[in-house]
Amino acid sequence: MRMDEMTTEEFRAAVSKDPVIIVPIGGTEAHGPHLPLGSDTFQPEYIAEKVSESVEGVIVAPTMPYGQHSSMRAFAGTVTLSFDTLRSFVRDILSSLSESGVKKIVLISGHAGNSHLCAITEACREFVRDNDVSVMFFSDYFIAEEYEKCQIDGDGHAGMVETSRVMDIRPELVNDIRPVGKFRGCGYMVLPDASECFPDMMQGDTRGASAAFGKEINDFVITRVADMIRRDF
Amino acid sequence: MRMDEMTTEEFRAAVSKDPVIIVPIGGTEAHGPHLPLGSDTFQPEYIAEKVSESVEGVIVAPTMPYGQHSSMRAFAGTVTLSFDTLRSFVRDILSSLSESGVKKIVLISGHAGNSHLCAITEACREFVRDNDVSVMFFSDYFIAEEYEKCQIDGDGHAGMVETSRVMDIRPELVNDIRPVGKFRGCGYMVLPDASECFPDMMQGDTRGASAAFGKEINDFVITRVADMIRRDF
Amino acid sequence: MRMDEMTTEEFRAAVSKDPVIIVPIGGTEAHGPHLPLGSDTFQPEYIAEKVSESVEGVIVAPTMPYGQHSSMRAFAGTVTLSFDTLRSFVRDILSSLSESGVKKIVLISGHAGNSHLCAITEACREFVRDNDVSVMFFSDYFIAEEYEKCQIDGDGHAGMVETSRVMDIRPELVNDIRPVGKFRGCGYMVLPDASECFPDMMQGDTRGASAAFGKEINDFVITRVADMIRRDF
Amino acid sequence: MRMDEMTTEEFRAAVSKDPVIIVPIGGTEAHGPHLPLGSDTFQPEYIAEKVSESVEGVIVAPTMPYGQHSSMRAFAGTVTLSFDTLRSFVRDILSSLSESGVKKIVLISGHAGNSHLCAITEACREFVRDNDVSVMFFSDYFIAEEYEKCQIDGDGHAGMVETSRVMDIRPELVNDIRPVGKFRGCGYMVLPDASECFPDMMQGDTRGASAAFGKEINDFVITRVADMIRRDF
Amino acid sequence: MRMDEMTTEEFRAAVSKDPVIIVPIGGTEAHGPHLPLGSDTFQPEYIAEKVSESVEGVIVAPTMPYGQHSSMRAFAGTVTLSFDTLRSFVRDILSSLSESGVKKIVLISGHAGNSHLCAITEACREFVRDNDVSVMFFSDYFIAEEYEKCQIDGDGHAGMVETSRVMDIRPELVNDIRPVGKFRGCGYMVLPDASECFPDMMQGDTRGASAAFGKEINDFVITRVADMIRRDF
Amino acid sequence: MRMDEMTTEEFRAAVSKDPVIIVPIGGTEAHGPHLPLGSDTFQPEYIAEKVSESVEGVIVAPTMPYGQHSSMRAFAGTVTLSFDTLRSFVRDILSSLSESGVKKIVLISGHAGNSHLCAITEACREFVRDNDVSVMFFSDYFIAEEYEKCQIDGDGHAGMVETSRVMDIRPELVNDIRPVGKFRGCGYMVLPDASECFPDMMQGDTRGASAAFGKEINDFVITRVADMIRRDF
Repeated sequence: MRMDEMTTEEFRAAVSKDPVIIVPIGGTEAHGPHLPLGSDTFQPEYIAEKVSESVEGVIVAPTMPYGQHSSMRAFAGTVTLSFDTLRSFVRDILSSLSESGVKKIVLISGHAGNSHLCAITEACREFVRDNDVSVMFFSDYFIAEEYEKCQIDGDGHAGMVETSRVMDIRPELVNDIRPVGKFRGCGYMVLPDASECFPDMMQGDTRGASAAFGKEINDFVITRVADMIRRDF
Repeated sequence: MRMDEMTTEEFRAAVSKDPVIIVPIGGTEAHGPHLPLGSDTFQPEYIAEKVSESVEGVIVAPTMPYGQHSSMRAFAGTVTLSFDTLRSFVRDILSSLSESGVKKIVLISGHAGNSHLCAITEACREFVRDNDVSVMFFSDYFIAEEYEKCQIDGDGHAGMVETSRVMDIRPELVNDIRPVGKFRGCGYMVLPDASECFPDMMQGDTRGASAAFGKEINDFVITRVADMIRRDF
Repeated sequence: MRMDEMTTEEFRAAVSKDPVIIVPIGGTEAHGPHLPLGSDTFQPEYIAEKVSESVEGVIVAPTMPYGQHSSMRAFAGTVTLSFDTLRSFVRDILSSLSESGVKKIVLISGHAGNSHLCAITEACREFVRDNDVSVMFFSDYFIAEEYEKCQIDGDGHAGMVETSRVMDIRPELVNDIRPVGKFRGCGYMVLPDASECFPDMMQGDTRGASAAFGKEINDFVITRVADMIRRDF
Repeated sequence: MRMDEMTTEEFRAAVSKDPVIIVPIGGTEAHGPHLPLGSDTFQPEYIAEKVSESVEGVIVAPTMPYGQHSSMRAFAGTVTLSFDTLRSFVRDILSSLSESGVKKIVLISGHAGNSHLCAITEACREFVRDNDVSVMFFSDYFIAEEYEKCQIDGDGHAGMVETSRVMDIRPELVNDIRPVGKFRGCGYMVLPDASECFPDMMQGDTRGASAAFGKEINDFVITRVADMIRRDF
Repeated sequence: MRMDEMTTEEFRAAVSKDPVIIVPIGGTEAHGPHLPLGSDTFQPEYIAEKVSESVEGVIVAPTMPYGQHSSMRAFAGTVTLSFDTLRSFVRDILSSLSESGVKKIVLISGHAGNSHLCAITEACREFVRDNDVSVMFFSDYFIAEEYEKCQIDGDGHAGMVETSRVMDIRPELVNDIRPVGKFRGCGYMVLPDASECFPDMMQGDTRGASAAFGKEINDFVITRVADMIRRDF
Repeated sequence: MRMDEMTTEEFRAAVSKDPVIIVPIGGTEAHGPHLPLGSDTFQPEYIAEKVSESVEGVIVAPTMPYGQHSSMRAFAGTVTLSFDTLRSFVRDILSSLSESGVKKIVLISGHAGNSHLCAITEACREFVRDNDVSVMFFSDYFIAEEYEKCQIDGDGHAGMVETSRVMDIRPELVNDIRPVGKFRGCGYMVLPDASECFPDMMQGDTRGASAAFGKEINDFVITRVADMIRRDF
């Protein structure tokens, strides 16, 4: 069930049954030489849709396709919101859904950058303090990392796990390049351009990436998220 | 060309040819008893994609599916941003695209509410004053109104024109209800709940709406926008 | 009754009778080669005073002589507030009058620019949502346009209607120039300097303007506003 | 010369001669049982006009009739802006006048409350740090206090000096009450309602107030301000 | 009793007895050629600690060592917060202490600049209006000035009084220079660099300064503050 | 060298030699039943002072003793700033030190909460993007964790490492309780009161804590930070 495909009447009927609304938060961000800019959008949106299919009473709100990005900011195609805009966006969405009578909201973020997550967290925390609404928030990237086979040393942004996942979801958008890249630690200096730490625009060894492995991971994430929703609300 | 489907390298190559980037701004808003909540998203996104197909060098950025809404705020399924969030969002998007080297940006808004448009306009104006980037902004709703057959007395939100357009774009999402509704003027009192002015949640007579008429309108809008882009940049 | 001429005691007595407070919002803006910079201030202030004379229990608060201006910004003598300052100003005025026990407030804006009106509207909407106070808001420019003789094609800023109105109110401030000017549409490009659309700094044909016609219009506006106040509060 | 009475052309011509623009900042505030709510507006406006008459090249901008008030906030008829609104207002006015080419600006505040003055000062300081414009700012209340005969123990808000000054400027608005009032010190406790310190809504002994004494003071202030303008710009 | 030396349990026990919490607000600011940059920190912290020793139930919260500074801004070592940061800081501290159950708070500021005090005052006023917490706020500089021997003409920043006080508190940090300096009035022009008014970086004649005199003053201030706390809460 | 103990002249001389300024950022936060509220202040301040003693040209600015806290917010004695206040504070400090000519700044935070660190990071990032100043930022907590013996499973807030460190620095402030506590994971629900996750107000087993072990850790941190400063500036 996609919220944007429902009429107001259908949505009202659904709300009367105390549904869980998932709001996917994506991003438009350089993802190495091989993955599309929308990778962080496609993943949480896909997870949300699959969870909605498997758990009764889960509705997927429209995906926000922009987030806050620092490390990839200097690479072409990264579009970044400021911290404050992202935080305000989340505040407004929570507040507006809550005005519609929604009591259970899940935010799934594709991007897992610190400040990006912090902006969303800050908005959520403030909201739950003042409202009687249950909010769950995570990055599907972290759920994927709970999968044992995903605990690969040095794997990260646009790496083995992410490449495989996008190959499963949108195979036509992944080209034939399979890059290997290292994160270059920069100590504790605050860098004007954090892309210095990503000379390869990605991190990990994607040579073994496959749609099949991606499916395994995505299935794991879908099951895990479905379980969390059933258990924690 | 959809930006989220390009790699960073493809986007960089495209930017070097001085492209026009269209950012569709949609909405999640009650649209009468018959149209889906995402109507304001589907329309500008569709126009953007079709224009991109017909004009060389036009790229479609990811659609923002939320806007600011007042009149429909009280109806289930309307999700509204605050004025300030929407304005900040537009500021950030313009600024970030501009940092990527983009020089020509078109914002197309599906929703045509006054404050919503004002928030976007304010952000655009401030941006063009300080940056050497050309920005075009309009609601496709206004372009449709330029079409003679669309100048129908009393037609408005979720009315004849909009219903027909959505029937052309996403026929499976329009149900069989064909409402007739009137805008109820409320003078100049500032209403706590502006939905009073829309007792039928829509405005117009949709009984004659058809996908064919919608196609006519959409084609008109696509041609007109393509012309504007060719002429004004 | 002008609020600034009353003592605190007189005002308190008046408030106990549930009065209507009119706050005129003017502007300091280039008004063609012939009208004074304060034209947008003189008109709503005059209307407010006349309405106060004719309707029992209407008090005129001090006129705010500054607003937000974009189109005339580049012409000498235009003084513009930012959107946020104007919005905050209206918030504070509404809130402070309400703390004094006032329950009925009318804002009349001389200037009718989109963003200017939106700033005031946004403040009013937010206020009425949270407070049990009735607020009416309009531009007297729009009321004048309801007068049939004022529906003159191509007439606008500092045009026939406005020139005549100011000639009625402050004849000594209108010089002998009677300009003719056209609005030059600029499509949907967002202009760094919107004065491009007003090469003549005004819009319309003022050659037939007269104090007598101005009086007719002003009388119409006064009557109409008085009626609205009697009817809608 | 009042700015709002000039055309854009007259103002442009004036600006080319490097004029001094005075912006009077008034207030709408309870002023004892005897003085009008606009007392803080009438005084600086009057001073500004008289200085403009006596010093070549001084133009009076429209008077802002609202300020920030704390002590009188609880008394009927006091209309207060927030600190931030007042500060933003001053920022915008300075910035906009400066865009018009003005290089010398004087702000005269009728009200002399600490926070009110601080808001204006903060805006001015920030502005002069970033712009090559000379700004002078004071309350005419302080200039009056420089007059020896005004150094009256216990005289203050709506007291002997202010009563006499308003009697000179707007005699018809001062009624026959001649109150005596004391400021009641409240130590260093921050009061939710600072009007506790003004049980009489004013401070001083107004029984000897007269228009003649007011004229003496006003003349002193006019001369002093004229001198300051001639000397310091 | 220093709050930072207490465990959470000790603090909770103390709060249950309705204590007074003193928050010293210091500064890091040029203090003439002879006094340390932390002079405005050492003084209120010392007063707070001594008062805490002599009045039952007074706890000293950690000292904020930064404030807002304008006049000394241009001299090396002055570290200034913006008005808004300082105001927000005070808001947060009051609000957070109040959430812990504290009902009586004293803020003592070492620095006595107008804007600095105004920022703190604005935060306090707003807070006491909305919360049932008693707040006392003053600069110990003003209390010192109540001491008759401190009413020395032309004495001010880093002058006789302050030098003596710091000599009493931190003698090892005062070097052998004993400057004489004058405040140079600058009329009402708003200066981009207000240090012009302090050519000697201080004001007064410090040649007679002594730790003994400083002790006298400090003792006076301690006694006075202790009395105020006992009396006004 | 403590900045607050220097005169302006001494600081200016120091700045001319291109020093490194360390700004310790502490906190006032519940730290289990055994540690003082100021633990997060004492640790980074101590590290800063020791590093200053061992590296030429390092100056310690006054310690900010307040930060942002969520998990401990509900426990008595936690004083929390908002995200925005902390971020603004860091902006101002960096900007003001930079105006004094400082080119190398180290921020050391005692507290290591996500949002707290994010607020500081956001301010730093924005600052280094616009200014030619080098900024290093870390929590000494993370440096301690690099020490092999500190990699103790389940050790965290007010645990073995922190207890030992405070015992080394301020032994008189650590009482005889040696708690054992567990972090209770709460999944991904956003909690109105995150203290639920810390039923023991701390995390770890402190029974083996000792000043000797604390000294080992602190020495490790001091050496490591000294090395980082020598290497990275």
